[in-house]
Amino acid sequence: MRALRKTHDGPGAELVDVSVPEPEEGEVLVRVHATSICGTDLHIFEWNEWAAARIPRVPMTFGHEVAGFVEAVGPEVHHIRPGTFVAAETHIACGHCSTCRTGRAHICENLRILGVDTEGAFAEYVVIPAQNAWVVGEGIDPDVASIMEPFGNGVHAAFGTEGGEDLTTNPVAVIGCGPIGLFAVGIVRAAGAWKVVAIEPNDERRSLAAKMGADLLVDPAERDPVEAVLEATNGTGAEVVLEMSGNAQAIDQGTRMLARGGRMSLLGLPDQPVTLDLNDQVIFKEARLLGITGREMFRTWQQTTTLLSTGRVDVAPVITHRLPLDRFEEAFEVMASGRSGKVILFPGG
Amino acid sequence: MRALRKTHDGPGAELVDVSVPEPEEGEVLVRVHATSICGTDLHIFEWNEWAAARIPRVPMTFGHEVAGFVEAVGPEVHHIRPGTFVAAETHIACGHCSTCRTGRAHICENLRILGVDTEGAFAEYVVIPAQNAWVVGEGIDPDVASIMEPFGNGVHAAFGTEGGEDLTTNPVAVIGCGPIGLFAVGIVRAAGAWKVVAIEPNDERRSLAAKMGADLLVDPAERDPVEAVLEATNGTGAEVVLEMSGNAQAIDQGTRMLARGGRMSLLGLPDQPVTLDLNDQVIFKEARLLGITGREMFRTWQQTTTLLSTGRVDVAPVITHRLPLDRFEEAFEVMASGRSGKVILFPGG
Amino acid sequence: MRALRKTHDGPGAELVDVSVPEPEEGEVLVRVHATSICGTDLHIFEWNEWAAARIPRVPMTFGHEVAGFVEAVGPEVHHIRPGTFVAAETHIACGHCSTCRTGRAHICENLRILGVDTEGAFAEYVVIPAQNAWVVGEGIDPDVASIMEPFGNGVHAAFGTEGGEDLTTNPVAVIGCGPIGLFAVGIVRAAGAWKVVAIEPNDERRSLAAKMGADLLVDPAERDPVEAVLEATNGTGAEVVLEMSGNAQAIDQGTRMLARGGRMSLLGLPDQPVTLDLNDQVIFKEARLLGITGREMFRTWQQTTTLLSTGRVDVAPVITHRLPLDRFEEAFEVMASGRSGKVILFPGG
Amino acid sequence: MRALRKTHDGPGAELVDVSVPEPEEGEVLVRVHATSICGTDLHIFEWNEWAAARIPRVPMTFGHEVAGFVEAVGPEVHHIRPGTFVAAETHIACGHCSTCRTGRAHICENLRILGVDTEGAFAEYVVIPAQNAWVVGEGIDPDVASIMEPFGNGVHAAFGTEGGEDLTTNPVAVIGCGPIGLFAVGIVRAAGAWKVVAIEPNDERRSLAAKMGADLLVDPAERDPVEAVLEATNGTGAEVVLEMSGNAQAIDQGTRMLARGGRMSLLGLPDQPVTLDLNDQVIFKEARLLGITGREMFRTWQQTTTLLSTGRVDVAPVITHRLPLDRFEEAFEVMASGRSGKVILFPGG
Repeated sequence: MRALRKTHDGPGAELVDVSVPEPEEGEVLVRVHATSICGTDLHIFEWNEWAAARIPRVPMTFGHEVAGFVEAVGPEVHHIRPGTFVAAETHIACGHCSTCRTGRAHICENLRILGVDTEGAFAEYVVIPAQNAWVVGEGIDPDVASIMEPFGNGVHAAFGTEGGEDLTTNPVAVIGCGPIGLFAVGIVRAAGAWKVVAIEPNDERRSLAAKMGADLLVDPAERDPVEAVLEATNGTGAEVVLEMSGNAQAIDQGTRMLARGGRMSLLGLPDQPVTLDLNDQVIFKEARLLGITGREMFRTWQQTTTLLSTGRVDVAPVITHRLPLDRFEEAFEVMASGRSGKVILFPGG
Repeated sequence: MRALRKTHDGPGAELVDVSVPEPEEGEVLVRVHATSICGTDLHIFEWNEWAAARIPRVPMTFGHEVAGFVEAVGPEVHHIRPGTFVAAETHIACGHCSTCRTGRAHICENLRILGVDTEGAFAEYVVIPAQNAWVVGEGIDPDVASIMEPFGNGVHAAFGTEGGEDLTTNPVAVIGCGPIGLFAVGIVRAAGAWKVVAIEPNDERRSLAAKMGADLLVDPAERDPVEAVLEATNGTGAEVVLEMSGNAQAIDQGTRMLARGGRMSLLGLPDQPVTLDLNDQVIFKEARLLGITGREMFRTWQQTTTLLSTGRVDVAPVITHRLPLDRFEEAFEVMASGRSGKVILFPGG
Repeated sequence: MRALRKTHDGPGAELVDVSVPEPEEGEVLVRVHATSICGTDLHIFEWNEWAAARIPRVPMTFGHEVAGFVEAVGPEVHHIRPGTFVAAETHIACGHCSTCRTGRAHICENLRILGVDTEGAFAEYVVIPAQNAWVVGEGIDPDVASIMEPFGNGVHAAFGTEGGEDLTTNPVAVIGCGPIGLFAVGIVRAAGAWKVVAIEPNDERRSLAAKMGADLLVDPAERDPVEAVLEATNGTGAEVVLEMSGNAQAIDQGTRMLARGGRMSLLGLPDQPVTLDLNDQVIFKEARLLGITGREMFRTWQQTTTLLSTGRVDVAPVITHRLPLDRFEEAFEVMASGRSGKVILFPGG
Repeated sequence: MRALRKTHDGPGAELVDVSVPEPEEGEVLVRVHATSICGTDLHIFEWNEWAAARIPRVPMTFGHEVAGFVEAVGPEVHHIRPGTFVAAETHIACGHCSTCRTGRAHICENLRILGVDTEGAFAEYVVIPAQNAWVVGEGIDPDVASIMEPFGNGVHAAFGTEGGEDLTTNPVAVIGCGPIGLFAVGIVRAAGAWKVVAIEPNDERRSLAAKMGADLLVDPAERDPVEAVLEATNGTGAEVVLEMSGNAQAIDQGTRMLARGGRMSLLGLPDQPVTLDLNDQVIFKEARLLGITGREMFRTWQQTTTLLSTGRVDVAPVITHRLPLDRFEEAFEVMASGRSGKVILFPGG
């Protein structure tokens, strides 16, 4: 089969022929219909410092956002059959550590990531644990099912570890409007948020945020986003801030635009330690800062399914590029340019 | 001033002249703009068994759903000024009992109700505690501001005592589509419920439920509502049931249509003890049954304000009658007929 | 091996020789060290109406509360080794239904029960899914490890589906002091409950409740338990009621002794529908009634392990009888007499 | 009356004669029985940078932790009578802002502090709002009732904004063992925490922590507290960290000793911005950082009352000094030395 592989530890990747993998016990073989590019994949493609330190070995096939048809199942797989259309939860949990045993598999102590720690999905076929295969029901376009994984990040950040009761009727700020931030704008709207402020310096992404339902767009290069949020909320601040940028200054600003008693979900990964004014912005305000990673298995997937299949959130504006897998270089180029929403690759062309 | 009063302990009421009340310390005098009729008021008008036992004394002016302009303030009222347009929280809490001191004033041990325990609002003027005056902001039509109180019942039932995180993306059944049930249909839609089933025998009310956003209408006289909900949810049941009917059979059915792990808010008041199959419908399913009364002071009012002022819920379909106060007999007649949604009276004509 | 079996559909059981079972994929074979008798086992032994309707087939070995050493593991069992001492979670969940996929395996739609739907533990050996084997750490006496399962019922009822934040510093009533109720008394004491009222007609069990830490003992045959709880709480009522009796009258009383805004966990199984005064005891009080079954997998087991291994709860008073398996008739007799706490059988003698 | 006053904006204070204040509407005059010294009072006494910037005007009487007998009540005070023994909630909330109206008065937008923004309690008499007077019930020694306020800080930090369900059966680290940290050690023990680690460089305070029930004492000057906590928890970390030190390095360490999915309550006030490794210590671990200030009005006071009056927590070890008010210089000296727990002053000698 054709697979996009890191053939050496350096920039770039090659589309090469490798043999189709075999599913072992508890695994399924998926014929890839669509696979989308994550920011992480761009790091791996460009082989930045993080990638060099994180990727265990090359050569390897990367890519992890994926949907496709189950082609074959390994031994001891009873509940899923060939022909089923599935999307992949990309966090592979061990199932027996303390966090797994208490229903928090997404923060498993022995977590492995598809396409990072294992052979990935930028290929005609990929093997995943049967447990990680989410059956995609009716009402979700197969072409966009691979984005359920990053959409789930947005869902998990929006609802937080506490359930999201603070979204309905309240002002919400979303900092950073890459694909996950854009999904989040649509998600909090669907959950009944009252005033959704999207903060993003990139003009095209800001206009996508408007399409996803943001009530107010703020370009932080033009205007102090803290002031903008306070003004839009009569000085009270946002009840919920969803931090998707990983930018240290933006995280600090997030605490400053938060209402007393408010909640900030931190999903964006800063590339350095972050300095915060804990006194005035966290302690005296009784703010709650929640670390967010991955998706709750599988509550988040049920929520994702409903939001997408019922049309409560329409992700069409976010999907800006659809390309056959062999045009991967063009795909990574547009990703790197920042002038894209989500880019989806189709191994079948 | 003109006031609609129970002049004796029996059916009916009279519009009579009484002197304008004076606000005492901590109270405000409100010039009534609009006052709507609650089911309770119909009981008082008709003087049923409940009313005869509950009303402390006649003569008295009844009515409690009210909005109007502050005309004057009593001593020690500092935060509200004449001219302000307010709606009334009708639960008058003592402020010093254990539940009040722990932020649950709506279940105050010494609770009194406006227009039941005190002189009410079917009049040109009414006195309420300053604390119970909720400032109605922009974006809410003054003509419908008196319905914020029953709308708040719907909000509180929908969000429950746990916050309503279970509404978003989940199927919700609303049993009983009087005005509060109809409001609730709109509220859960705005909170992102996925499939809203409205169960109501009255044809007109069912068609109002459709206007409020119900996805499925069930006439329990025609079809078993338990079956209908199970079918609509692929056998899983409703994650949330909002019981607004007070009908003993419907409450039992509510437990049967509930999903495993689901939640039922009980707001409708049954007029007799209710028999439930606790084993199969509550214990083995780990259902949660939540008693709901009044509105959280004043979180519910903030939520109500947002849902109404932003247009997330449009209550127009529910307001079926607007009449001057002196046409009260017509108003109670249509209420008694069951062929109405909300009926609003205007003392100013 | 020797196994205590129902050999026909009627009262009684026989100790017979059968072959040692073989663990299949994902299963482990446990050499039983201790196995305790549950009320359910007594029903099966006596073959009451429930048992006749519920047990799928005879002959079968019954019993499910069990701890012992892993003797052998089946294929695809990687995380547990022969020689490990384990206790069994007795709810066998399917792992792929909607409630399992959302972390609520204990209310699995396809739930099977060890020793009811499968061959049980009143034997020298039993096979259980590897997933259901909980490794018993240091600090827990192997002789009592089989009671971790019913102790876990007490933990789950005490902490409820909401986490148990309402236990600390609050008055708690426990209705029914069979073994689970007795465990619950100790558990809520350890969680910081302020005034623990134990309600139980059996004199011996009441005195065991005192040993477990109850502050007040009430014999409902002597005194109205509602009055007793109200008096002990200055008229406020119990913030939490744990209903362990399954008695219809006691459940009704439970709602009446509950404080405004209080919570009742329902674990005892009534053998008939139950009639409740929802108006005054649930709705106006905003009470929460929570169905409770089984144990959260495996949060409850972690809590159980800590409470037992640290000595926060000492279950010694509850363990009233320890007998070799071949004295099973004596064991069931004392269980039937009501004059026992927990009875533990030892197949090894 | 005698009052300890800041007579000028500089170090020190003077005991002078001033007239007894008069309670105005909604206020009560309290004859001070006991008043304890908070770290804040030491800052005001020493007139550090914070005090110089924060105190609105001198001369003024400072001190805020106080208990005493109501001597007289102002107009419109109906629920409290002269002779009642009360302790003071020292956060004076406006009652009409958005956070007050939603039951979070302790983070009132217009918050004033007794003895900082108003005339304080280091005097024979003090005036407080009637609303802020908490009736001290039986079972609490009047001599220590003034410490209910800082004890309440410990309660609020321990239970957090989420209720404290994560305390029972879990390991808890308390960083910083000043009086509030010491109280917290006792509180989490009473709430059923499993392994309480007290981290504190001061030898005497560490030994007080042992008396309050800490299972493990760590001197951070001797041993890396992160390592110590990880070792004590088999590498898992503390489920809950209570940060009482305000030390930037300790806060960073707090995030590192936190378990996956854990919670850190931040109460200690750092005197500078704090730099945190959000990636590894918060986001990937899904940690929750909760700002904590003051006490929930008045849920925290009910919890405090129960914990103290039932003897669940014995604060005796923490009360190291009891002095007449006129020995205030000695009191502040011992406070400044760090060789004290709580110091209580008695204006009556």
